[in-house]
Amino acid sequence: VETVLAGRDKKVVISRNRPTILIGERINPAGRKRLAQAMRTGDLGPVGQEACAQADEGAEVIDVNVGLTDIDETALLPQAVRVVSQATGLPVCIDTSNAEALEAALAQCDGKPLVNSVTGEQHSLHRILPIVQQHGAAVIALVTDEQGIPQDADTRLRIAEKILVQAAKHGIPEEDVIIDPLVLSAGADQRASVTTLETIHLLAKELGVNVTLGGSNVSFGLPDRDSVNGVFLALAIAAGVTCPIVNPRSARRAALIADLLLGRDEFAMRYIAFSRRSRREPDLMSRR
Amino acid sequence: VETVLAGRDKKVVISRNRPTILIGERINPAGRKRLAQAMRTGDLGPVGQEACAQADEGAEVIDVNVGLTDIDETALLPQAVRVVSQATGLPVCIDTSNAEALEAALAQCDGKPLVNSVTGEQHSLHRILPIVQQHGAAVIALVTDEQGIPQDADTRLRIAEKILVQAAKHGIPEEDVIIDPLVLSAGADQRASVTTLETIHLLAKELGVNVTLGGSNVSFGLPDRDSVNGVFLALAIAAGVTCPIVNPRSARRAALIADLLLGRDEFAMRYIAFSRRSRREPDLMSRR
Repeated sequence: VETVLAGRDKKVVISRNRPTILIGERINPAGRKRLAQAMRTGDLGPVGQEACAQADEGAEVIDVNVGLTDIDETALLPQAVRVVSQATGLPVCIDTSNAEALEAALAQCDGKPLVNSVTGEQHSLHRILPIVQQHGAAVIALVTDEQGIPQDADTRLRIAEKILVQAAKHGIPEEDVIIDPLVLSAGADQRASVTTLETIHLLAKELGVNVTLGGSNVSFGLPDRDSVNGVFLALAIAAGVTCPIVNPRSARRAALIADLLLGRDEFAMRYIAFSRRSRREPDLMSRR
Repeated sequence: VETVLAGRDKKVVISRNRPTILIGERINPAGRKRLAQAMRTGDLGPVGQEACAQADEGAEVIDVNVGLTDIDETALLPQAVRVVSQATGLPVCIDTSNAEALEAALAQCDGKPLVNSVTGEQHSLHRILPIVQQHGAAVIALVTDEQGIPQDADTRLRIAEKILVQAAKHGIPEEDVIIDPLVLSAGADQRASVTTLETIHLLAKELGVNVTLGGSNVSFGLPDRDSVNGVFLALAIAAGVTCPIVNPRSARRAALIADLLLGRDEFAMRYIAFSRRSRREPDLMSRR
């Protein structure tokens, strides 16, 4: 299937036959003091800068998360979404667990955004899917339900199927649901990454849907996290992930190489262009 | 299946349920002027040092290649094999296209070595397989025949099957044949790596045999070859490669991370030990 997203200026097509689409994860106050502090004071300058930096680094969709306990998301999220949209022209991924903030942000959106996220829980399906349908958005579905995150790939696949059925009942077509198979730390449980890779294989083979993945949980607690994340991203793309949520600065090389080796980069043109640019602009690539 | 190799002191078991075994590729005069010059003068000191360095860096089998047009392989290969065996105690992989040199080297071998290689060509099968059987060795089989390297995975699989049948006729059991699916440059042909990964999948699924791979051809002509090789190695291991022929210095991290993410490194102990050691001994890890 092909999922089409649109921003103010740019359209993005997500499909297994095309190069991987990176969703930039960095607009998120978790663990980022300065960004969080700017959000608290209503200063959205850093949000715009972070959006542009990620676009420079290869992100084609920008995730926007302003979730802090002491922030009024319903007021701030629509503003942040507008800033990102105007700064980059890219589709946004609206990342919130607050349905009211989601509706307010969708009202501010150009084009066709992505909603992050719905789960297999009844209250989530009933609350989120109508909003997604009403605004003609696409949605990320987490394969978790009232029982939590399943330990095995088959149960995760069944939750994905359930969500697709519910989405269809709400008038949302299959191509507008992107599944997140979820990943836990490989350091804590050696089966965690295996189960996630199996789930991705099943989703690609049985359902053919687009698959996203939060790329950095897997390395939690391990040394040299970027290397672990890079290898996991490549394995996940080979298994069927088409639009991972990542830090594009550290993830882009692995994604481009995976695309190249999987036959999605004719004459290696994208990889070679990236390599030339990283040599030419060392400051840009290492700044933070 | 399990392939068991043995050196003077150490036994190595190659199997899909165990961590990846790295075969060290660096004892090879191709493109290495100083090593080639030492070989020409009969100085095997550098061969012994290179063997020990690779063992330090995680190689568990050492490939030995002394093939130069102006070298008498039949005289030098047995000496080089003996030096490597005595220096490391590890199983050797005897890498030659000269059957006479192969026989002379096998006569010098402790334990159970690996022979690199036989092909699907009649003259190769008839010349090499009896030598392998007579010395109780294992053998690497390249999936090429009189028509050259097949463009597609199915034909490569059929050549592998043909070689296994011929090996069995010569009294060599399936577990003592390790298949090399061959890889060409991904820069020259974007299907090259895809065909190799498909071949590995088929070999693992249809035949269940152990699979090796020369890891560095794929990046020929591309920038940042180590990154391309590392990602390709991880994808190849996920697809079914169990004993790649690599430079362990640059390949070990990717192999350890792949093993970790594929559930072959309980509590991440091997990866964490490696990371600690690379921090503690920077000189060791960067020397050449």
